[in-house]
Amino acid sequence: MSKSVLILGAGMSSTSLIRRLLESSEELDLLVKVNDANADLAKAKIGGNPRGEAIHFDALDSAARRPHLEAADLVVSMLPARFHPIIIEDCIELRKNVITPSYVSPELKAMEDRINAAGILVLNEIGLDPGIDHMSAMMMIDEIKAKGGKMERFESFTGGLIAPESDNNPWNYKFTWNPRNVVLAGQGGAARFVQEGQYKYIPYNRLFTRLRPIEIEGYGEFEGYANRDSLSYKETYNMQDVPTLYRGTLRRKGFCESWNVFVQMGMTDDTYQVDDCANLTWRTFMNSFLSYDQVMPLEEKLRLQIPMSDEVFEKIKWLGFFENENIGMKEGTPAQILQRKLEQKLSLEKGDKDMIVMWHRFNYSLGDSKHEMNASMVVIGDENGETAMSKTVGLPVAIACEQILRGGITKKGLCIPVEEDIYGPVMRELKKCGIEFNEKLVY
Amino acid sequence: MSKSVLILGAGMSSTSLIRRLLESSEELDLLVKVNDANADLAKAKIGGNPRGEAIHFDALDSAARRPHLEAADLVVSMLPARFHPIIIEDCIELRKNVITPSYVSPELKAMEDRINAAGILVLNEIGLDPGIDHMSAMMMIDEIKAKGGKMERFESFTGGLIAPESDNNPWNYKFTWNPRNVVLAGQGGAARFVQEGQYKYIPYNRLFTRLRPIEIEGYGEFEGYANRDSLSYKETYNMQDVPTLYRGTLRRKGFCESWNVFVQMGMTDDTYQVDDCANLTWRTFMNSFLSYDQVMPLEEKLRLQIPMSDEVFEKIKWLGFFENENIGMKEGTPAQILQRKLEQKLSLEKGDKDMIVMWHRFNYSLGDSKHEMNASMVVIGDENGETAMSKTVGLPVAIACEQILRGGITKKGLCIPVEEDIYGPVMRELKKCGIEFNEKLVY
Repeated sequence: MSKSVLILGAGMSSTSLIRRLLESSEELDLLVKVNDANADLAKAKIGGNPRGEAIHFDALDSAARRPHLEAADLVVSMLPARFHPIIIEDCIELRKNVITPSYVSPELKAMEDRINAAGILVLNEIGLDPGIDHMSAMMMIDEIKAKGGKMERFESFTGGLIAPESDNNPWNYKFTWNPRNVVLAGQGGAARFVQEGQYKYIPYNRLFTRLRPIEIEGYGEFEGYANRDSLSYKETYNMQDVPTLYRGTLRRKGFCESWNVFVQMGMTDDTYQVDDCANLTWRTFMNSFLSYDQVMPLEEKLRLQIPMSDEVFEKIKWLGFFENENIGMKEGTPAQILQRKLEQKLSLEKGDKDMIVMWHRFNYSLGDSKHEMNASMVVIGDENGETAMSKTVGLPVAIACEQILRGGITKKGLCIPVEEDIYGPVMRELKKCGIEFNEKLVY
Repeated sequence: MSKSVLILGAGMSSTSLIRRLLESSEELDLLVKVNDANADLAKAKIGGNPRGEAIHFDALDSAARRPHLEAADLVVSMLPARFHPIIIEDCIELRKNVITPSYVSPELKAMEDRINAAGILVLNEIGLDPGIDHMSAMMMIDEIKAKGGKMERFESFTGGLIAPESDNNPWNYKFTWNPRNVVLAGQGGAARFVQEGQYKYIPYNRLFTRLRPIEIEGYGEFEGYANRDSLSYKETYNMQDVPTLYRGTLRRKGFCESWNVFVQMGMTDDTYQVDDCANLTWRTFMNSFLSYDQVMPLEEKLRLQIPMSDEVFEKIKWLGFFENENIGMKEGTPAQILQRKLEQKLSLEKGDKDMIVMWHRFNYSLGDSKHEMNASMVVIGDENGETAMSKTVGLPVAIACEQILRGGITKKGLCIPVEEDIYGPVMRELKKCGIEFNEKLVY
């Protein structure tokens, strides 16, 4: 075999990546080497394919890692983002191209000059979000600009959700990714964006009340809440003057109103340990966030202190927060305790499929006429267990690998896929895999 | 003169301390040495009194400081709390007693063994809060225990406010101390306390809605919101089993409901810089926290998005947040911008007097009977500019100095004034200065 790619990390989001590269390995005359801390996992993902090789070494040990990087034609780091810099340091020295699906961190930014000097490509942010969001948005924005259009508004929402066929609980939600991130989502600073030329700030305590309703044909109603930082995308997307730029997270309609109960109560707080945790029941846990009352039952007190609809109340009740059962934890923050209860009730069941939804809205003027275009992408997990998340993160990475190996991508330097020379070939191949946008000119 | 006390720091809270020590210097045959980074300030506070001496040296320079510490019989550090450890290090070596009005920090706690070994007294938390709060509470709790009572509830609230005769704005509030601390109050974690044996947590976004109404005879109505950490006082006050322990901050009735508007909007956030600050007006600043609307005026939008009474709305309006005037800042966090506006409208005017209010509630059982006692202290600033804050912080420190010098306090080690041998003599002297509690047995 003439070429080899080394994949570091064989976790959930590497499944589709490895499968796809093995599929194209014949045509590319490629050897797909997979490394993981768990050797069996790497082997399982290769599944006996003769063009795959599970190689076991400690990717965090410089001496152990180096010969394997040296032997590879291309390196893919699917490790947690904090480990990318040490891998990229080696790739600079060894002059190897490297791909990661993660955000360009300040540490990576600081290495840019040396990456340029080494003449290698360090391609980041080429998964789902970041990744497909950049590529699809820039593809459509560039098309609008190419025909002389002037961007007036860009809104973009993405969500990892449960597929309609597996959606069988009143929250219309299951954890399809890291539950901790879901529980803590939106904390750590106000959401910032720009709307009609006005800078807007939403504090955490109102984040889940300022929602954008979104309908996607064939998939029903969703709602979006603002991501923390939309403003940095002005530069990323080269739209410094756009009057409205708003990015957010998608949930099924009604989710945020119910989630807001936890936010208002303070149950998503991860900064302190709850007292006397071992003796808490779900009921006393909930009661600890409400003021004392000698006679009023918890249910009544909750509705008085945190006003909510009957529907929202039933969702809280369905989770089991009024039950006298011990929470079963020796210690925990409010967020950790909340997460435990949610994992008991909102985890994927066997056979469940996940769903990725992305929705863009583009407003632009063309001469004297105003236009709006919507674009939506829906990807659903496979029967065989390849999740929508794995496909939407892993396939863009795999396609970028193929393009680099066959010379379809020749760019060098520290990059993200916001220019045609990268997003073009990747988006065309994604379409062939069924990952495509349904575009609709509203007016 | 046979003895000398060295006071480090001649700022606002040292005024009453220096005045009182100069007054008793004759009787104690005492020289009162005062050091401040601002030499003129130290001189002014001494006012030509022959028993006072302004000595200029850099208190943060070890070599410059040491001979002066060595020459003193007693050291008082009124420096910012972070500087206490270096002063106390010297006092350990030189075997000098030292007093500070600040909380015992973890750094000080770590020095405890060496303080004991040196055989010196390091007396902390002997200002107002911490200080008079500890002493008055422990005095009354010890009295209750002495007659066989069992504590069932302790609540305690303190506030730095504007005196009734200077209270001439709709907020019934002026900054009598560091405005930044007032703007940021309550941030950084949930308020935690225990009520009827139940641990209770209040997140910041509901802190100013869960209020304790308090009436003080002759001074009208107040309200209290919870301090961050009441639970640590179980140990401090040796009341591990008390079912209710609740400490908080006092404001005039109605203040918190209005302040909550800023909290809900996110205007007290100090974690990010507002965009395009130089071009903000008070009106556009407020608008940046409300959702966009093409036609609705700001005033109407505010009331729709943050429901409030007419009275609260008028208070926001009175501050000037609907005016088109530029905010006059090149950069700032929301909290810094809010602070600027509040300082424009809520600062002390010439001749204004401040007011310190402290209120305790004690519930206890005595055999089969249940009792409740309230105790309140009100201190008002003087005509001559000696503020209530200066008196309530400085006088306990001064009295502790006198007691140590004349042998009324002989305790050694790292102490706070929670035992009779310290709080007894100090509280008796404070009473002679008019700083006393009005106790009332409710039942």
